[in-house]
Amino acid sequence: MSLTIKLTITPRVINLNLHPRQRTKIPAYSLGFRPKPIYHSNALVPILDSNKQPRMSQASVSGSVVKSYLIEPDGGVLVDVIVPESERGSKALEAESLPKVRLAKIDVEWVHVISEGWASPLKGFMRENEYLQSLHFNSLRMQNGTVVNMSLPIVLAIDDETKKNIGSSKDVGLVGPDGDLLAILRSVEIYKHNKEERIARTWGTTAPGLPYVEEFITPAGNWLIGGDLEVLKTIKYNDGLDHYRLSPRQLREEFDRRQADAVFAFQLRNPVHNGHALLMNDTRRRLLEMGYKNPILLLHPLGGFTKADDVPLDVRMKQHSKVLEDGVLDPETTIVSIFPSPMHYAGPTEVQWHAKARINAGANFYIVGRDPAGMGHPTEKRDLYDPDHGKKVLSMAPGLEKLNILPFRVAAYDTMAKKMAFFDPSRSKDFLFISGTKMRTYARTGENPPDGFMCPGGWEVLVKYYERLQAEEATPAAVSA
Amino acid sequence: MSLTIKLTITPRVINLNLHPRQRTKIPAYSLGFRPKPIYHSNALVPILDSNKQPRMSQASVSGSVVKSYLIEPDGGVLVDVIVPESERGSKALEAESLPKVRLAKIDVEWVHVISEGWASPLKGFMRENEYLQSLHFNSLRMQNGTVVNMSLPIVLAIDDETKKNIGSSKDVGLVGPDGDLLAILRSVEIYKHNKEERIARTWGTTAPGLPYVEEFITPAGNWLIGGDLEVLKTIKYNDGLDHYRLSPRQLREEFDRRQADAVFAFQLRNPVHNGHALLMNDTRRRLLEMGYKNPILLLHPLGGFTKADDVPLDVRMKQHSKVLEDGVLDPETTIVSIFPSPMHYAGPTEVQWHAKARINAGANFYIVGRDPAGMGHPTEKRDLYDPDHGKKVLSMAPGLEKLNILPFRVAAYDTMAKKMAFFDPSRSKDFLFISGTKMRTYARTGENPPDGFMCPGGWEVLVKYYERLQAEEATPAAVSA
Repeated sequence: MSLTIKLTITPRVINLNLHPRQRTKIPAYSLGFRPKPIYHSNALVPILDSNKQPRMSQASVSGSVVKSYLIEPDGGVLVDVIVPESERGSKALEAESLPKVRLAKIDVEWVHVISEGWASPLKGFMRENEYLQSLHFNSLRMQNGTVVNMSLPIVLAIDDETKKNIGSSKDVGLVGPDGDLLAILRSVEIYKHNKEERIARTWGTTAPGLPYVEEFITPAGNWLIGGDLEVLKTIKYNDGLDHYRLSPRQLREEFDRRQADAVFAFQLRNPVHNGHALLMNDTRRRLLEMGYKNPILLLHPLGGFTKADDVPLDVRMKQHSKVLEDGVLDPETTIVSIFPSPMHYAGPTEVQWHAKARINAGANFYIVGRDPAGMGHPTEKRDLYDPDHGKKVLSMAPGLEKLNILPFRVAAYDTMAKKMAFFDPSRSKDFLFISGTKMRTYARTGENPPDGFMCPGGWEVLVKYYERLQAEEATPAAVSA
Repeated sequence: MSLTIKLTITPRVINLNLHPRQRTKIPAYSLGFRPKPIYHSNALVPILDSNKQPRMSQASVSGSVVKSYLIEPDGGVLVDVIVPESERGSKALEAESLPKVRLAKIDVEWVHVISEGWASPLKGFMRENEYLQSLHFNSLRMQNGTVVNMSLPIVLAIDDETKKNIGSSKDVGLVGPDGDLLAILRSVEIYKHNKEERIARTWGTTAPGLPYVEEFITPAGNWLIGGDLEVLKTIKYNDGLDHYRLSPRQLREEFDRRQADAVFAFQLRNPVHNGHALLMNDTRRRLLEMGYKNPILLLHPLGGFTKADDVPLDVRMKQHSKVLEDGVLDPETTIVSIFPSPMHYAGPTEVQWHAKARINAGANFYIVGRDPAGMGHPTEKRDLYDPDHGKKVLSMAPGLEKLNILPFRVAAYDTMAKKMAFFDPSRSKDFLFISGTKMRTYARTGENPPDGFMCPGGWEVLVKYYERLQAEEATPAAVSA
């Protein structure tokens, strides 16, 4: 069971992550409008190390061109399959006339992901040839012979009845959970959904209790339908957080506005503690030492499906805002934005997706830690994945050669210095490891973590969340009935 | 339970697969000697189609150079880690002094495979970085950035006690099942053997009953040991079939001797029926039409572990010989040789290995049929793999781009023409599909298959095998006790 408590986020938070000079230009995002395409010329000085030399890339988006010196999107062009305003009426009419596929909430998250180009060069749900390459090779070979990373199958399942209704129709209309027409799927291909094989090859286990599997794959239909997407309008959630949902195109524009010469992405699905902050600040220091003049941090919490005992997105966003407010991270050099993908908890397979999607958003450095996208084994008393496999697999993954992988040193609570510090094995007994589970236990029991573990404002957000959660859980069932 | 009946193979059979002009030169193979390295210049006319143009490759083998115009071995150089005669004494002495790892029969099969370069560029059992790439990407990235296919983990498992005995030793000695020192494994790396993940990612299922898993993985140790092999002498089985076990180097030499301008490999683990023969002969016809002057068929039965109800290797070799004797296949343009790898029955993952190993042996065309390396699901009433996935995955597999994949048309028994023929869907009722299981049932029950299904000599071999098998099975247990 997933409990979500909506917390109001003050408007002041919205611009915390923006450069002061840019603030006046930005509110368009928070209103959900897409800004006019503008090319911001970027007069960056090339970096000395030729390996790190910024590269010019062109991304054709809805007819305009967005450039970035940082890194090319996969396939060279950032995918944007959102139908231009002028064509929406006619496409919506056409969609009405087509056989329909009803989407679950998770499918809408994937439509969002594909529509904005996070999965570039993927233009829709996978057809079988893409599915098989993803499943077996974690990558796709493009027609020109280049290889892009694609480690998770991005697929749409349908049941027998829906398949029958589609018949031999070339195109189908995709309908959201509320009945609204969201998209057209073109030139569809329907193929078998071998769930067991998909699960085994994606997670490396078929043990019962994998969150994404139990929620979305086991109950899904026995067919997959692939095709090219045309999305009728930008996906919005109206949860007070849409202004945080910058598309890859918007992020690239923002990096250009800030004149970033390096972007380092930090994927997370947990509250930010001072160990994370130490790491992010230390990464910036290292990049400056390498000769970069203006490295920008993309603090990029995952916004799609997470398992029931993870901290919900709205609470995490409030906590992240406090971390910036409290000055633990520098708002001048940090962008906080939501990554719209759902979590698979598929460890080394999923961390490739996390990194690949950030390439498409313009990040050329990716920070990876211990056991990325991992979790406990659902039926055995051990980690599901070897905690070191994530960064190893990432460093060898096809299609990610152009991304700079930054494995991070382990941070822990230094009981002598009374702060989070990089673990020093020569005095290991001075260090206290506080896992996500341990942190949540602290917050749940109202116990304070050691001083210096997390900024007080951020900690308060968590404590309040767990107080409300416990109050709700304590409410007798009869009352809510 | 695997029952094997030894059948005597007449010496005449030995040379059936050799060109008459070459016969006098060949007996060296059958005595287990390695011929002196000789470069056979190959004055082939380049083929018109530039995609098919023979390429010059160099393979450095034990200091000599073997050239072939057909296809480069993976990594550019054919691996040969068999210690030269002159160094055997000193290496054997050294091996004696090292911590020992006792090999199972299956491990010896893999030592054989690696030692002769079937798995080129792999020089030993996989270290963790190779294992992870194989498991996740079915390929290895070389230092120069090129990618070679490597879909099956080729690994050596050890138990806790062996790991403890090895301690921090850099090298270990490998001891065969009979206690004889076979090889040295250099610069070893020991890492965790997560069996569940290995099985799930290799087979796409963890269902109980997978033959290779049950026999060799489940009972294996919890550690894997990787390193570079030095094999003290060529692996021999002394089963009367060693003369059929040509190494990739010997095969390349033989293709050059025959002045082959195309080599098409046919992997099999079953008796050859006339449908197979039709297909192989038709492939040769197509290659001639494409402009090749001398396409050679490599009929390449798998010689390592097979599941208990498959027909044993010695019976299959006798059956294959009859097929050539009876003129169903042309001995002038056919080489019959044994592929020493064990079977995984891992469908689309394994077919890549089958194809990749044949590249190393010099084949530039690979024939692939329905459900290659597939089997029934061990616990469900269905094929374990989609019968079409094998050829699809093969056609997209990283590192196999240079191999010409020849998917084959389905052959079945045409009841009107009373012979095996390519299936004609317009008169599907005229065709009878005879599966491997059905064929074995015929042979087991003594019932004759329809006329023209298999050459009489070949069929007789099978019938006799099953007669002996049934006689053995009927023997009361008390007699053998």
